Amino acid sequence: MKIINERVNFDTKGNPDLINITGRLNEMVAASKLKKGMLNVFVVGSTAAITTFEYEPGLTKDMQELYERIIPRSKHYHHDQTWGDANGFSHLRAALTGPALLVPFEKGRLLLGTWQQVVLAEFDNRPRKRELIVQIIGE
Amino acid sequence: MKIINERVNFDTKGNPDLINITGRLNEMVAASKLKKGMLNVFVVGSTAAITTFEYEPGLTKDMQELYERIIPRSKHYHHDQTWGDANGFSHLRAALTGPALLVPFEKGRLLLGTWQQVVLAEFDNRPRKRELIVQIIGE
Amino acid sequence: MKIINERVNFDTKGNPDLINITGRLNEMVAASKLKKGMLNVFVVGSTAAITTFEYEPGLTKDMQELYERIIPRSKHYHHDQTWGDANGFSHLRAALTGPALLVPFEKGRLLLGTWQQVVLAEFDNRPRKRELIVQIIGE
Repeated sequence: MKIINERVNFDTKGNPDLINITGRLNEMVAASKLKKGMLNVFVVGSTAAITTFEYEPGLTKDMQELYERIIPRSKHYHHDQTWGDANGFSHLRAALTGPALLVPFEKGRLLLGTWQQVVLAEFDNRPRKRELIVQIIGE
Repeated sequence: MKIINERVNFDTKGNPDLINITGRLNEMVAASKLKKGMLNVFVVGSTAAITTFEYEPGLTKDMQELYERIIPRSKHYHHDQTWGDANGFSHLRAALTGPALLVPFEKGRLLLGTWQQVVLAEFDNRPRKRELIVQIIGE
Repeated sequence: MKIINERVNFDTKGNPDLINITGRLNEMVAASKLKKGMLNVFVVGSTAAITTFEYEPGLTKDMQELYERIIPRSKHYHHDQTWGDANGFSHLRAALTGPALLVPFEKGRLLLGTWQQVVLAEFDNRPRKRELIVQIIGE
């Protein structure tokens, strides 16, 4: 049994930016040479999140509209008065979605469905350099 | 330290179908003979999810009504135009809830509360054969 | 590779009570003497949850208002008829948020962002004694 901690960086555009990171994660699983285990992907920071969905343009648009309905960008948030950076909506969207996801793997590949992709959701209102911690544990 | 990867299959009915899988997971923990560790349950596919709640008929109904309020079935979704299978709402509900859950165990049993069950949430609009990956890691 | 299971208890006030538990978790990581790994925090029970956000008064208020908008306290829930304890809203908020979070650590500290705190969300409508299972796995 072995644990590997790695960092991956992504340059994101402003909100909303939904990035399919499945390919990069599968490369890391393959490079680990581990045959069986779990991969934990964790985004550092409080205005981005990790989720899974079928990564196609229609659903990507649906996801953005869903967040806009539940947590509208134009609403007033108390957080906007704390720092004056007007991204209260970004924080709430990230907190509701969650920063981490644990995915099983076998034979060097994540055990995802064919139409199930791991997505980095950038909710901030400006481009960011995002650091992800990718942990691979297994044997 | 050891890691075990197993598959479990469930036949689900159409949306909404909330299935209590706690008993099955506890059997797998007991069968593993591991005394202390964590169980990761991950549902393959993008129209189902894993969650926990008190599995009683009233709350099960409340959960279904909650999803119907936040992500109505009858709304138009862009995804419905991509494939024509009219399950955009299923995808969004699954993405918001998440496909994985990590539960601690000790002495061969999951450390859940008495009124806290692990639930497979089938959000698709038709019966499905669901594959779950159950990973048990511990010693 | 080693796994440590610990219990931590928190006395919570009634809903809403959002408690920053990051300091306590970092102490436990340091005490474990493990250098690299993952920490799983899991709340036992079905009316509380674990999340991450920037723990400052404005955003804490925003989080409470978000839950009140999505899952209002005053609404009627079927669950309230099952037990007569009027906390249907607490169960739904907890189920939507999730009971567990997996956070990576290195050199004895959780790899969180500067403005990213781990928060125990008490959603119940009365003070509770909360038990958290904290699992530290690593080397």
